[in-house]
Amino acid sequence: MTVESLNDVRELAQQLRVDSVRCSTAAGSGHPTSSMSAADLMAVLISKYLRYDFAAPHNPNNDHLIFSKGHASPLLYSVYKATGAVTDEELLSFRRLGSRLEGHPTPKIPWVDVATGSLGQGLPIAVGVALAGKRLDRLPYRVWCLCGDSELAEGSMWEAVEHAAFAGLDNLTAILDINRLGQRGETMHGWDLASYTRRLEAYGWAAIEVDGHDVEAIDRAYEEAVSTTGRPTAIVARTLKGRGVKAVENQEGQHGKALDDPEAAIAELGGERNIRVEVAEPAAGEPHEFGNGELALPRYEVGSDVATRKAYGDALVALGKADGKVVALDGEVSNSTYSEFFAKELPERYFELYIAEQQLVAAAVGMQVRGWRPFASTFAAFFTRAYDFVRMAAISQATMALSGSHAGVSIGEDGPSQMALEDLAMFRSVHGSTVLYPSDANQAAKLVATMAKLDGISFIRTTRGNTPVIYGPDEEFPVGGARVVREGDDVTIVGAGITLHEALRAADALADEGVSARVVDLYSVKPVDAATLRDAVEATQGRLVVVEDHWPEGGVGEAVLAALAGEELAFAHLAVRAMPGSGKPAELLAAAGIDADAIAAAARRLVSSAVSA
Amino acid sequence: MTVESLNDVRELAQQLRVDSVRCSTAAGSGHPTSSMSAADLMAVLISKYLRYDFAAPHNPNNDHLIFSKGHASPLLYSVYKATGAVTDEELLSFRRLGSRLEGHPTPKIPWVDVATGSLGQGLPIAVGVALAGKRLDRLPYRVWCLCGDSELAEGSMWEAVEHAAFAGLDNLTAILDINRLGQRGETMHGWDLASYTRRLEAYGWAAIEVDGHDVEAIDRAYEEAVSTTGRPTAIVARTLKGRGVKAVENQEGQHGKALDDPEAAIAELGGERNIRVEVAEPAAGEPHEFGNGELALPRYEVGSDVATRKAYGDALVALGKADGKVVALDGEVSNSTYSEFFAKELPERYFELYIAEQQLVAAAVGMQVRGWRPFASTFAAFFTRAYDFVRMAAISQATMALSGSHAGVSIGEDGPSQMALEDLAMFRSVHGSTVLYPSDANQAAKLVATMAKLDGISFIRTTRGNTPVIYGPDEEFPVGGARVVREGDDVTIVGAGITLHEALRAADALADEGVSARVVDLYSVKPVDAATLRDAVEATQGRLVVVEDHWPEGGVGEAVLAALAGEELAFAHLAVRAMPGSGKPAELLAAAGIDADAIAAAARRLVSSAVSA
Repeated sequence: MTVESLNDVRELAQQLRVDSVRCSTAAGSGHPTSSMSAADLMAVLISKYLRYDFAAPHNPNNDHLIFSKGHASPLLYSVYKATGAVTDEELLSFRRLGSRLEGHPTPKIPWVDVATGSLGQGLPIAVGVALAGKRLDRLPYRVWCLCGDSELAEGSMWEAVEHAAFAGLDNLTAILDINRLGQRGETMHGWDLASYTRRLEAYGWAAIEVDGHDVEAIDRAYEEAVSTTGRPTAIVARTLKGRGVKAVENQEGQHGKALDDPEAAIAELGGERNIRVEVAEPAAGEPHEFGNGELALPRYEVGSDVATRKAYGDALVALGKADGKVVALDGEVSNSTYSEFFAKELPERYFELYIAEQQLVAAAVGMQVRGWRPFASTFAAFFTRAYDFVRMAAISQATMALSGSHAGVSIGEDGPSQMALEDLAMFRSVHGSTVLYPSDANQAAKLVATMAKLDGISFIRTTRGNTPVIYGPDEEFPVGGARVVREGDDVTIVGAGITLHEALRAADALADEGVSARVVDLYSVKPVDAATLRDAVEATQGRLVVVEDHWPEGGVGEAVLAALAGEELAFAHLAVRAMPGSGKPAELLAAAGIDADAIAAAARRLVSSAVSA
Repeated sequence: MTVESLNDVRELAQQLRVDSVRCSTAAGSGHPTSSMSAADLMAVLISKYLRYDFAAPHNPNNDHLIFSKGHASPLLYSVYKATGAVTDEELLSFRRLGSRLEGHPTPKIPWVDVATGSLGQGLPIAVGVALAGKRLDRLPYRVWCLCGDSELAEGSMWEAVEHAAFAGLDNLTAILDINRLGQRGETMHGWDLASYTRRLEAYGWAAIEVDGHDVEAIDRAYEEAVSTTGRPTAIVARTLKGRGVKAVENQEGQHGKALDDPEAAIAELGGERNIRVEVAEPAAGEPHEFGNGELALPRYEVGSDVATRKAYGDALVALGKADGKVVALDGEVSNSTYSEFFAKELPERYFELYIAEQQLVAAAVGMQVRGWRPFASTFAAFFTRAYDFVRMAAISQATMALSGSHAGVSIGEDGPSQMALEDLAMFRSVHGSTVLYPSDANQAAKLVATMAKLDGISFIRTTRGNTPVIYGPDEEFPVGGARVVREGDDVTIVGAGITLHEALRAADALADEGVSARVVDLYSVKPVDAATLRDAVEATQGRLVVVEDHWPEGGVGEAVLAALAGEELAFAHLAVRAMPGSGKPAELLAAAGIDADAIAAAARRLVSSAVSA
């Protein structure tokens, strides 16, 4: 049968509940009760409001349905079954090894935009998709985001609420499933729906309170949502967790487990059904294009002094002019990261996210859902604020470029709160990531251009202060490469970014003493060029100094050791080991023991000893 | 002179402005304009409302003054000068190497509770201090928190607003310095004060709009704040950035730099002054104590199967009963982390923070300010949400214990969003941290007890599933140690947590083939026991397999390589290298290549080859 009346919708909702019970029973785990609370909300949505071509998930006119409460995956997969997108057999493969129907949704499923399951991320990402719809694609698709009430405690949800209102995202509808119960008990606000509507309205949203099991009321609410202009709408729905099965309905202790008596539950829900929903077709339309041009990267004169963060800004403008898919985002520090150049030259494709780094990264993730190439920038230290979003973006198979400025103690007087000293560790341990750390403006520009062609999450670490330009503007820096910038056969010194220049100064000093140092620029921290490193240590009797403006853990030093695992070395690792304070950049490099003097001293010690472990 | 009238307060405010200009001019950098906007707010506060004994910063009755907008450090240091706590000479050492008056405040200064400078953290930490005042210390001290308007875009601020209202923190006053201008331009809401008060009131705060340069109005607002009960108060103050110096007042492009013409500015502000403020003495009172007892850690039978997360919960209760300073916090997953045992047994010292991991960590930081020993728990994966707070807590010299459950692919069906695969990298690269990863319930209990005695930030990684108890309840596990759990001379296998048990199974299989494997339990990932590792590889001809349920970067493998840097090894590193999905724990361990079969295969390959790099 198909859905032709609201009465049919009620039956569909029961089917979604039954299928949620069935698949979680087959799996022996999962979240049926969190699915059952939102079944009516989804039944009305897919029957009358969602516009989606399941045969063509990349149709740019498709609506987007994001389950911010990703643990309600049984409901989502039951929706897919109801639309005919998955078979009943596949539905019952839920949570089995090899099934794309995992415990929480991921884009292994073609109709899933992004992975959810870490709560509080779906709505911020939905804001990114909705921004793309309004300002980039310029298509009338809508973004529907099902949110749980527990996750409304996450500040990231309110960053999203704030930005959605600010940007007037009337193409976004948040569906709040207020079922009162979290994992371990009642939420902060229980069924006090007004506590949510009051907040939402204070931020500028339209908010509609409904009984989330009254399909007529839900229908009217969606109707109001799609006809509201100038601001986003939230449907604040009072629901019962486990609705329809008395043994679990509105009960504590029923979160995240298969039902004890599924057969009785299915009978209570009226048994299995095979309703098929014909989801409405999306409108026809072509996404806006900004046009492409020739790539004319900035060119810096060898011997001049230019900050790599400035080269990032210059290169980003060049890239944006060459590639209409490139967009830039920043967290209210564009005059420090130099994304302000892009904002001035290409304002249509620039997004100011204010000081909200979770929303910054989430917006980038949302935009790349629609095929845009986001470059998001802030101080590298402040990406620690969004680490969960970056981690989840890897599960989302997201492609985005992140630029972190103000790396390390070399920023100087501002002190440790502004110094990124763990960013390399953080980004190296992101699945499939690329981690770049240029030492020179021409190199930085080339690497920025490369980032626009990489799959996955890439990160570039830039330096606050000016550094000498040592490479010509036509040199190439492939990802996974390293550069021998000085030949030598007594000791290898590996640096990157600011420390490469210290290494070169150390090599000069050592040369005066008759010590021949080989200097390697490890601009690609991940992947790392093991062959060049091996050749270098072989050429220098196994003597190796690695120097980095980063804590000792997880950065350049450990990347090098992993690449050379098992090699016999005389090894010195210079890194930041004590908490830095304020001071001049040179003073802080010296205090941390990562300046030229410290490098030369370490190299001298290795050369004067025999190679030994 | 001293402050005896509101007219004197006006003069004091001008002094604070002049001194902010003077010290940032001496430094050649800093944020004078962001200091000048809040000078009147601080002048009234310290003259009439703050109760603080600068000679006794650890007096438990002292109020707490937290600059959430840490970049206004010139104002804070000028306040210290006005109170006589620092000399004018020291004030002028601002931002110099070795001065405790750093670019952003840190607890190197005895009157600073916590480091700020990463925006959006001061208010959540202030909530933690205020919670300690209400529920732990039970003293009437107040917490005053100066916030910027730019940082109100951070979701963490709204986690704090939400929790403060929920907890009825009428001992907390947020002072919002709405100076309209962020770093690169206007904030989202400019001078629309109502946009802030509307939000604050929707959350349940009292909110008072004032002209932030009208000392009478400020005085009335503070009076109202201290007399408001049952809820926190925000003073929403309209201010001018750079107030009092026309060249910079309310101008864009004047953020974060010393003034161009400081002499003219000082003249315009009425010249230097030397007003000395007598800050009111705090009340007398003794903090509440919960009493201590004998430590009776849980004891598990060797050979039984117990999850280390359960041992965490059991041990935490024992610790809480033994040590009245121990408090527990959780992010709405206490029935998974097993902090629910503490919640049930010691509810007075248990704090439910709901799904707000930033506020969870911030509350712990705030409580340790007052000498409590917080243990905060959530899924290890979700601590990524609070990485910036952990990073800053290290700068704050905070002592707290964090417990992350559900490590790695071994959690099974829930899928990658719930799997911590980067937590070891994240916590290893926190300055001064201790990272523990027990494999067994008795070991976990002992390590939890140890964490209560450690300085700094400690992290324990626990496992979801049951694992065999292999250690007796009286064995000791010092931090920085490792355990040889099986002797052998052909190959060393290093595991931790779940992989230790896989390593033991592999060793059994290898023994059947005549290969003698030494198995090392690396329960202390940081600091790491380099001596035991060196002895092991020397005893096994340099053959080493490291196996971990974590991405390859930054975890156990790299910790071991760093400890053995330069040793010639035949090395195999088994880690999670492909994105996992759902499946049974054993299936996922096998799919990742970190189960007993994979370990045995890797060991066989090393044994059958000659040792070589």
